[in-house]
Amino acid sequence: MESEELQYAILLRDELHVVQAVMLEVQQQLPDPIAPALVTLIQEGGKRLRPALMLLSAYLCGADIQRAIPVAAAIEMLHTATLIHDDLIDNAALRRGRQTLNAGWTPAATVLAGDVAFAWAAKLATRSQNLRLVQRFSETLAIICQGELNQMFNDRGHLSTETAYYSRIFAKTASLFILATEAGAILALQAEEDIARLHLFGQLLGEAFQIVDDVLDLMGDEAVLGKPVGSDLRQGIITLPVLYYSQRHPDDTRIPTVLNPPCHEVVFQSLVADLRRSDAADRAMQQATMRADEARALLAVYSDTPYRRAMEEIVTFAVRRQY
Amino acid sequence: MESEELQYAILLRDELHVVQAVMLEVQQQLPDPIAPALVTLIQEGGKRLRPALMLLSAYLCGADIQRAIPVAAAIEMLHTATLIHDDLIDNAALRRGRQTLNAGWTPAATVLAGDVAFAWAAKLATRSQNLRLVQRFSETLAIICQGELNQMFNDRGHLSTETAYYSRIFAKTASLFILATEAGAILALQAEEDIARLHLFGQLLGEAFQIVDDVLDLMGDEAVLGKPVGSDLRQGIITLPVLYYSQRHPDDTRIPTVLNPPCHEVVFQSLVADLRRSDAADRAMQQATMRADEARALLAVYSDTPYRRAMEEIVTFAVRRQY
Repeated sequence: MESEELQYAILLRDELHVVQAVMLEVQQQLPDPIAPALVTLIQEGGKRLRPALMLLSAYLCGADIQRAIPVAAAIEMLHTATLIHDDLIDNAALRRGRQTLNAGWTPAATVLAGDVAFAWAAKLATRSQNLRLVQRFSETLAIICQGELNQMFNDRGHLSTETAYYSRIFAKTASLFILATEAGAILALQAEEDIARLHLFGQLLGEAFQIVDDVLDLMGDEAVLGKPVGSDLRQGIITLPVLYYSQRHPDDTRIPTVLNPPCHEVVFQSLVADLRRSDAADRAMQQATMRADEARALLAVYSDTPYRRAMEEIVTFAVRRQY
Repeated sequence: MESEELQYAILLRDELHVVQAVMLEVQQQLPDPIAPALVTLIQEGGKRLRPALMLLSAYLCGADIQRAIPVAAAIEMLHTATLIHDDLIDNAALRRGRQTLNAGWTPAATVLAGDVAFAWAAKLATRSQNLRLVQRFSETLAIICQGELNQMFNDRGHLSTETAYYSRIFAKTASLFILATEAGAILALQAEEDIARLHLFGQLLGEAFQIVDDVLDLMGDEAVLGKPVGSDLRQGIITLPVLYYSQRHPDDTRIPTVLNPPCHEVVFQSLVADLRRSDAADRAMQQATMRADEARALLAVYSDTPYRRAMEEIVTFAVRRQY
C-alpha cells in the first residue's frame, strides 16, 4: 500500500501498532461471527490518518503519549463505527475493495456491530481521564449523525449551494479531523488559543481531504478507488465539482434527471464524461490546495521536529493522493 | 396511566419534568421529520422508571440533584436509543401501543435517529463532570449490545439454560437498572461498599422486572400490553416460564417446532394455551418475588424518607404490575 511509504507511518509505527491492539480489545466477549469480522475490519483499517493525526498532535503539544494512545484508538473506533452504519445506510457492498459487513450480515447484526464499536470508542475515550475530551467525542458523534440526517432529508436529490456543501463535509469529515488534531492540545491542557489553532488546522485539512475525495469520486481510476466512478452523483449527492459544473451550465437538463432517478445509464455516463472533461475538478482542487496551504502555515509555530514534518506531509498527501 | 398514581411520580414530578426538558434538547438542529418524531417518542416515554430510580438513588445518597438531573436524562436517553435500534432489529411495528420509528421510516433514518440519541446520552452523561459515571455509561452500552448480539447469534432458536437466561436479562435489562441505581452513590462519591449495595439493588430489581415482563408476555392481557401474547416465543426467545415448562415436559415436541419456524399457528396457539395453564408462570413469579424481597431488604440501611419509600414502592410495582 502506498501509504506505508509515508513518513508518519514509519515514525509512528510502534504507537499505531499499540493503537490497533487497543482497538482489537473490542472483540472480547463478542460472539461469532461478529468478533472475527470486526477484527478483519480493524486490521485492514486503511491509512490510519485520524489516529496518526491525534498522535502527532499529542507530540506537537507535549501530551502524555500513554494517555494519547487510547484517545487515538477511540477516534479510529468512532470512525469505524460510523463506517459500519454508513455502509448499511448506503447499502454499500464494498469498502476498501472488501465486502462490507452489511453485505454479509443482516441489517440487525450490522446495527449492533456499529453500536458495539460506538460503545468501545466511548469507553476508550474515558481512558484519557479528560472530561473535556470525552465531551468533544459525544459532540462529534452528534455532528456526524446530524449531518447524515440532513443529507438524507434535506440535501439529497437537488442542487445545493456551496454553503450547504461545506456544512455537509464539515459534519461528514472535518469534524472528526478536528477532534483528532485538537485532542493533543486538550490532553496537554494547552491554552485556548493553542487548542483553537489545531481545531482550525483540523477543519482546513478535513475539508481539503473531503474535497479531494469528491474529486477522486469523479476523476479517479476505478481500479485504484475500488468503487465505480461517479457513485456520489448516482446517489443524488452533489459534490463541489458537480456544483461548479452546474454553475457554468445552468441549462444542462441531465443534472436534474440524474439527481431524480430512474434515469437512463446513457444519460448518466454522458454527464459524467462531460464533467470529467470540464474544468470543474480543477477548480475544486484549487479550493482543496488553498485549504491545505492555510493548514500547513498554521504549523509554523511548532518546533521543526519529525512530528511536525510528518503532519505537514499528511497535509500534502491529502491533496496529492490518487486513492 | 396507572403509573401516574405511584408515589415516585408525584414525589419527583418537578425533577422528572426537567429531565424530560433536558432530553428534548436533542431536537435542536435535527431535520424534519426526525425532530418531531423523536420528541413524540420522548414525551410518551412510559413510566420513567430508570430516571426515577437514578434521582431516588441521588436523594438516598445525598448527591447534588442539579448534577443528577442530566445523568437521569442520559440514562433515559440511552434507554430510548436502544429501544429505537431494538424495534428496528426486531422489525417491531408497535411500541407502547404506538407506531415505532422503523415502521414509518427507512432503516437508514432509524439507525441514525438511534445514533443521535446515543450521542445525546453520552453528552448528557459528561455533564455530571464525573468520569467514572461516564465510563459506566459506555460499559453499560457495550453490555446491552453484546447481550443482543449473543441473543441473535447464540441464544435464538434453541432451548437455553437458566444461566443463559439470567445472563441475557442481565444484559438486556438489569445492566441499565444497575447504572440508574448506583449512579447516585457514584455521584455522591460514596464508599465502594455503598456503591456495591446499590449496584446489587439495581441488579435484583432489574432481574425481577424482566422476569415479570417475560411472564406478562405469556400471561398478560393483549389490550393492556399493547402487543400479542407470546411474542417472545414467536421470535424464538426462551423466557423463564417457557424454560420451566420445558423442564417439566422434556418430550413436548411443540417447543422445538415453535422455535424453528415456519410452524403452524395451531401448534403455536396450543403450546401457548398449555403454557398458560401450567405452573410455569407461578414458578417464574416466585423468582421475581424472591429478588424483589432481597432488593427491598438492601434499602433498610437508608433513613426512612419519602425517597426510600418511593424506591420500595418501585420494587413492589415491578412484581405486581399488569403492564
